[in-house]
Parts: sequence; C-alpha cells; structure tokens
Amino acid sequence: MSEILQAPDLAQLLRERKFAGIKAELSNLPPADSAEMMEELSPVEQAVLFRLLPTDKAAELFEYLPLEAQEKLIHAMGNEEAAKILDAMAADDRTALLEELPTQVCARLVNSLSPGERQVALKLLDYPEDSIGRMMTSEYLVIRDSWTVSQVLDHIRTNGRDSETLNVLYVVDSDGKLLDDVRIRECLLCPLDKKVSELRDGFFTALHATDDQETAVATFRKYDRTVLPVIDRNGGLVGIVTVDDIFDVAEEEATEDIHKIGGMEQLDEPYMDISLGLLIRKRATWLVVLFLGEMLTASALSYYQDQIAKAVVLTLFLPLIISSGGNSGSQAATLIIRAMAIGEVGLIDWWRVMKREILSGLALGLILATLGILRIAIWSYFSSVYGVHWLLIAITVGVSLIGVVLWGTLSGSMLPFLLKRLGLDPATSSAPFVATLVDVTGLIIYFAVAGIILHGTLL
Amino acid sequence: MSEILQAPDLAQLLRERKFAGIKAELSNLPPADSAEMMEELSPVEQAVLFRLLPTDKAAELFEYLPLEAQEKLIHAMGNEEAAKILDAMAADDRTALLEELPTQVCARLVNSLSPGERQVALKLLDYPEDSIGRMMTSEYLVIRDSWTVSQVLDHIRTNGRDSETLNVLYVVDSDGKLLDDVRIRECLLCPLDKKVSELRDGFFTALHATDDQETAVATFRKYDRTVLPVIDRNGGLVGIVTVDDIFDVAEEEATEDIHKIGGMEQLDEPYMDISLGLLIRKRATWLVVLFLGEMLTASALSYYQDQIAKAVVLTLFLPLIISSGGNSGSQAATLIIRAMAIGEVGLIDWWRVMKREILSGLALGLILATLGILRIAIWSYFSSVYGVHWLLIAITVGVSLIGVVLWGTLSGSMLPFLLKRLGLDPATSSAPFVATLVDVTGLIIYFAVAGIILHGTLL
Repeated sequence: MSEILQAPDLAQLLRERKFAGIKAELSNLPPADSAEMMEELSPVEQAVLFRLLPTDKAAELFEYLPLEAQEKLIHAMGNEEAAKILDAMAADDRTALLEELPTQVCARLVNSLSPGERQVALKLLDYPEDSIGRMMTSEYLVIRDSWTVSQVLDHIRTNGRDSETLNVLYVVDSDGKLLDDVRIRECLLCPLDKKVSELRDGFFTALHATDDQETAVATFRKYDRTVLPVIDRNGGLVGIVTVDDIFDVAEEEATEDIHKIGGMEQLDEPYMDISLGLLIRKRATWLVVLFLGEMLTASALSYYQDQIAKAVVLTLFLPLIISSGGNSGSQAATLIIRAMAIGEVGLIDWWRVMKREILSGLALGLILATLGILRIAIWSYFSSVYGVHWLLIAITVGVSLIGVVLWGTLSGSMLPFLLKRLGLDPATSSAPFVATLVDVTGLIIYFAVAGIILHGTLL
Repeated sequence: MSEILQAPDLAQLLRERKFAGIKAELSNLPPADSAEMMEELSPVEQAVLFRLLPTDKAAELFEYLPLEAQEKLIHAMGNEEAAKILDAMAADDRTALLEELPTQVCARLVNSLSPGERQVALKLLDYPEDSIGRMMTSEYLVIRDSWTVSQVLDHIRTNGRDSETLNVLYVVDSDGKLLDDVRIRECLLCPLDKKVSELRDGFFTALHATDDQETAVATFRKYDRTVLPVIDRNGGLVGIVTVDDIFDVAEEEATEDIHKIGGMEQLDEPYMDISLGLLIRKRATWLVVLFLGEMLTASALSYYQDQIAKAVVLTLFLPLIISSGGNSGSQAATLIIRAMAIGEVGLIDWWRVMKREILSGLALGLILATLGILRIAIWSYFSSVYGVHWLLIAITVGVSLIGVVLWGTLSGSMLPFLLKRLGLDPATSSAPFVATLVDVTGLIIYFAVAGIILHGTLL
C-alpha cells in the first residue's frame, strides 16, 4: 500500500549520483506520489531525473505535476527531450500544458511533435479557450453496429492500449457520425455472439465541442456519468471528456466565484505560487473600485455635516447601521450567486426570489431593530450617554435598521439577476461590492429617517 | 438523442388516465430526464406514476430525484411499496435517503427491507455521519489471485449485473483482505489465459471507512480515479466509492464554504426548497452575532464623542476608512479559506502567508492612502469643505488607511489559521465577520491617529 512507503530523499540521492537507486525508488511509487516528491526539487534537478526514466514512465509522472511545474521543467529540458515527453502525454493534458506556454514556445514544441501527435494537438488547440474542445481527449475506441461482442473484445485487446477509458465504447457509422454509446459492462454481461446493434438502447447524451466548459459540468452533474462523447456541428464524434477533468473545472469555477465573492479578481494560480506583484494587482483593482465607491459616503456625509454637528449622537450608530445593511446584502448576494452557479435558481425565478427576500429582509430587519432599540433603552436606563431624547433616537435607529436591512437584502439578491440578465458574471456582485453600495444608500436612509423623527427636537 | 425529445405533459396524461402512454413515455427517456419531469408533479401524482412502472425502472428513476423529492414521495407511498423501491436502489443512494428521513420513518423502512438489503443498510448507517462509510456502496466485484482472465470475464458475466462499476475489480484473499485493484482494461488488453496474479502491480490506494468524506475528496483529487476501494481497520474490503458521489460532496463543501464566507450558516437545502422560516433562522443567527459585535463601534465612538464634537469633519471619512479595512480583510480571509479548502495552503504555511500579507497589506494601504490624500487635496483646492487644516486631515486619513488596511489584511489572513489550529472550520472567519472585527478596531486606529496628528489644531 502506498501509504506505508517512506519518502526517499531524492535530492540527496541525486547529489550522490546514485542514479540506479533513484530509478528504483521512482518506479516503485504511484506516479502521483513521485510527482509530489519531484516538486521539492529545482527544475534542473527535475530535468536530470526525467532523463533517467524511460519515456513512458516520464510522461506518466509528468502528467501528475502541476501546470506551473510542467512549464518550468519544459524550459529546463532540451527541445528534443521535451518533444519526446509531450508525445507520450495524454492529448488533453498536453493541450492544457501547451496553452500555458508562451505562444512561441508552444509553436516550437507543437512542431517538434510526431506528425500524428501534432495533428491531434493542433486540432485541440483550434477550439476557443474554455470550450469543451479544449478539454476533450481523442483517445477513445469506436465500434460498429455489425460487430459481435466477441469482435468488440478482440478489438479492445488489439487497439485499446492508448484509449483514455474503456468503460464506454462509441458506435459510429461509416461517416464517423455518433450513433450510440455502449457501456463496457453491457458487453461483459451478455453472450459473446450478441451483435452491437442489439446492445444499443438508442439514447445517448453528447456534448458539443464549441460549447462552454460550464455546460459540460452541468451535463455531468445532471446525468452522473464518468465520461461523455463530444460531437461537432454535424453529429460527428470528435472526442470524449472524462469526469476527472470535469471535477477540476467545477473546482476552478467554485474558486473563481469564491474569489469574486471575496471582492477581488480570480487569481487563476495557487495562492502560494502567484507572484506578489500579481497578487497585489489582482486585489488592488477591486479595492480601488470599492474605495472610489465608498468615497461617496464622504460626499453624502458632508451634506449632513450640519445635522451631525447638531446631534453628534447620530454618528455613534452610523457604523452599526450601515454595516448591518452591508452584512444582510452580502448574505443575500452570496446565496443567490451560489444558487445560480449550481443551477438551483435561474433568471426566470427573479420574482419568486424577490418575494422571499422582501419577507426575509423585513423579518431580519425587525430582529435587528428590536436588538438596537433594546440596547439604547438599557444603556439609557443606566447612563445619560444618549441624552434626554433617547427614545426618539432609539426609534430612529430601529426604523433605519428595518429600512437598511430590507434594502440590503433586496439589492443583494437582485443584483446577481441584473448582472446575469446583462450577460455578465453574477459573482461580480461580490459581498464587498454590495456592502459598499448599501453603505452609501444606507447612510442616506439613516439621515432621512433622522430628519423626520428628530425634527424639532435634536435637529 | 435526448435533446430532440419533447417533454410530454405528464400531468395531463395522468388526469386523462392514459397510463399506457405514460409508461411508454417514461421508458423511452433517460432516467435523469424523466426525473426532471416528475419533479413538476405533486407527491401523490408521483406516487401514482411510480405504481405504474416496473420496480427496477422505478428505483432507477427514484435515484435521480433530489433527496427532498424522494423524502416526500416515500411519505406519499405505502410502506410496502416504498420498501420495494428502496430494495432495488443502489446502497449508497439509499443511505443518503434514509439519513434524511425522520428516525422513526427510517427505522420502519429499514425493517421492511429484504433481510440481505437490511443488513447492507444497517452496516452503512453504522458509520459516523460525514464518514466515508456513509457514502460507499457495497456493490462491487471481488476476484481471486488464482483465477485466469477468462474466469474473471465469466465471473463478471454471471455476477456483475448488480455491481455499481465494472471498471475496477478487487483482488482479495480468503479473509476478505484487499490485496490489489485491477482495472478492467488490464483484463481486456491481455491474453485470456493470463492469471490475475500476473496482472497485479502490487500498488493500490484505499480509503478508510471511518475517515471524513473530505479525505476522500482530497484522495480522488490527488490520484485522478473514478472509483476507490474502502477498507476497515484490518485492511478488509468493505465497499467502494465512486467519483460521481465525490463530485457531489466537493460541490456541497464549496457551497457550505461560500455560504459561510457570505456570513451565514450553510443552508443544506436548495434555496428554492428551504422553508422561509428556516431560511430566516439560518441568516438571522450570524446577522445577530455580527450586529452585537458591531455594537462595539457605538461604544467606541461614544468614547470619542468629544473629539467628534470638536472636529465633525472627522466623521466624514469614518465609513470610508473602516470599510476599506473591512474590504481588504474580506479579500485576505476569502483567499486563505479557499486555498486551505483545496489544500494549497496548510497550517504549516502560516509564516510564509503572514510575510506575503504584510507586504500586500502595506502595498494596498499605500495605494488607497494615495487616493484618499489626493481626493482631499483636490476637493480642498476647489472648496473649503475640509477647512484650513485640510492637509493635516489628509495626512490623518492617509496614515489611518495604511494602518487599517494592513491590520485588515493581517487579521483576515491569520484568522483562518487560528480557527483551523483550534480545530474549527476556517470558513467561519467569513468576510462579514472579519469586516465587523476590523470595523471596531479600525475606528480605534483612526481616532488614535487623529489624536496624535490633529493634537493642538483641531483637537
């Protein structure tokens, strides 16, 4: 079992030139574990190691390295060596790597591939970024209607070696048009002389090569499959997509959404690997936008400067009130963004959501208003910090809280719909964005309410 | 192809008692699509429909319904009927359903299962909630070292019908101890007279039944598998876990984290299905906690009331400064929470993260400070809104911004580490939580800076 093995000190072995020992260590480990150990070495040390391994072993190990490490390693290796390893990689992993490399390096490497592999790489690279075509692999097995199960099994035995999955076989006609998918279990569970045409159920779900990868995630989610075929505009089978790649896409999307909800551009790189400069730039953009938005609070407040001078006590509750609006807005926005991302809520539901959020906002506002009024009443019972008009102040704070929380909840929940309707990413209506919006408007609600309730007494 | 089919009006057919038509429609559709249509019907209509279908078809369709719909349907069906459908379900899906049902209903249903199935259900339910034992299925095929490939294929043909996956076969010894996993492709790609012992590579990765489901997600992520075996304390094979269930767990975890980041308890139910009362309760809890925390701003501000009365101009920048701290804190917390969730950052990295965040916080603070100072300078050039001491005010705002943003970034990034160290969920350090924390402390930083810089002039 892999867990029992001790991690050998690869760098140490390298320094001592114990190449045979290294080779033995690496061949004994699952590639995922070897890759993890490799990551601790410098790119040059890694390149030396790769030279020690047979090409197919090297390619297998290479696929388990993270993209960044692959890129560095490709740079550290000679052109010819890199081509050999690329040649032996799975087509989809190769595409992911080539996309990451600078255009010139990519072109150079694609050209150094073997003719057959080059064609595959070029075909894959031709699809728009983030399209299903970019994540599919061309390594699958096709079978024909007229074959018997026995012929199918023979075909697998001869041609299946390079196939990414043998769990599903694809039935195509003479033009390459996809007719059906047949699970290997069907072949294994029935008599050997049965025809493929008798195994077919006539139903299959296929992805379109030019569709967005999010469509693929949604389709896998709905149909619970481990692999799906990809077709072109004419229904021709052009590739397959496996669920492990979908898992990665779904995870990246969740990370993107979480970063946006946190109020920044998505990083696209692991936190520990991204350069400090880029990290700061990705965060500064939104922070500056929010700062400029929040400057409106300074403008709005300068408009109420006279009121503040007359009733300094009003400022005491300013952060409390605007942050309550911001918090309820963050909640609502986050809820709706995630529900949209996993397909629980669509544009069509906006009215049902609005009704729920008005009720939620009122209820939440009432709860906070009660707490706020209680706090002022209790403090006033024991001290004179809020003056003789404490009851009026308490009412002002209570009414403002209901208004601000209701407004925060409503704008937080409706903004994702608006953004989606405009064709933008709903996740852009991040929690800090909604909070800033509600800060500015919440302040106006507060002073407007104060102007009415405290008119003639404090103001 | 499934996309071409028109959705039949099931409710209409039901009302017209066209049962044969319904049966034909449902047998022609992939179960995922039938399930989607069923969801539009009432539980009683659904129960009628299920009575029309053969048990195995009904069970297949049932598995595609969401848990909530399954629960309602079970209530609408008779005990015997429900047991029949439960009997035919995959073990892992049945466990997920039984867990959702009230304890009494669960016990009643488990008892009405056939003896063999009951044993399986009880075995699955005995593992702690959120453990791998709860998501595994007992439907897999085991083979022996001494068999030939031909015997394996025969074994599959006779016994494979109920197996959840045939892609991987498990080699066990006479005590049921797991010796190795063999992919079906190995059997399909080699001569029929080869022995199982010759196919084995001696390496396998296994999950432990009592481990947390998050461990399973991490293992699948690392090894890129579609299925993994589950072993007990003695290394005995007790079940398998398939990647489609892992996909669901990973997605639920991301949703949980997003809800927490948005500042609320995770809903555990789809937004559209959760009752309004529960929705409000889940949101109110955190909102009240944050409100109580934010009340400290009122206390802190009442301490600075005299300063405010002397220099009302200071209040104009109050929301701007504390929200900048909150926003940078949200960013940092969100980044680290997600990086921890997907394993990019561990407890051990805290010092490296802290160094990065100090530099980021300083840089971001400097950027915002520059903007803030510019804003005050420009406004003062054209008006007298900030008075004669505008330069001192500008410096106060600038210095406070650097301090508050640095503090926000630091506390936002370190809080997840602290929570994780204490054995709590890092996602609890939600954006609104960090924002509230930084609001209170940011305010103190602001007035402390003002007290020093404006001493002798405004204050």
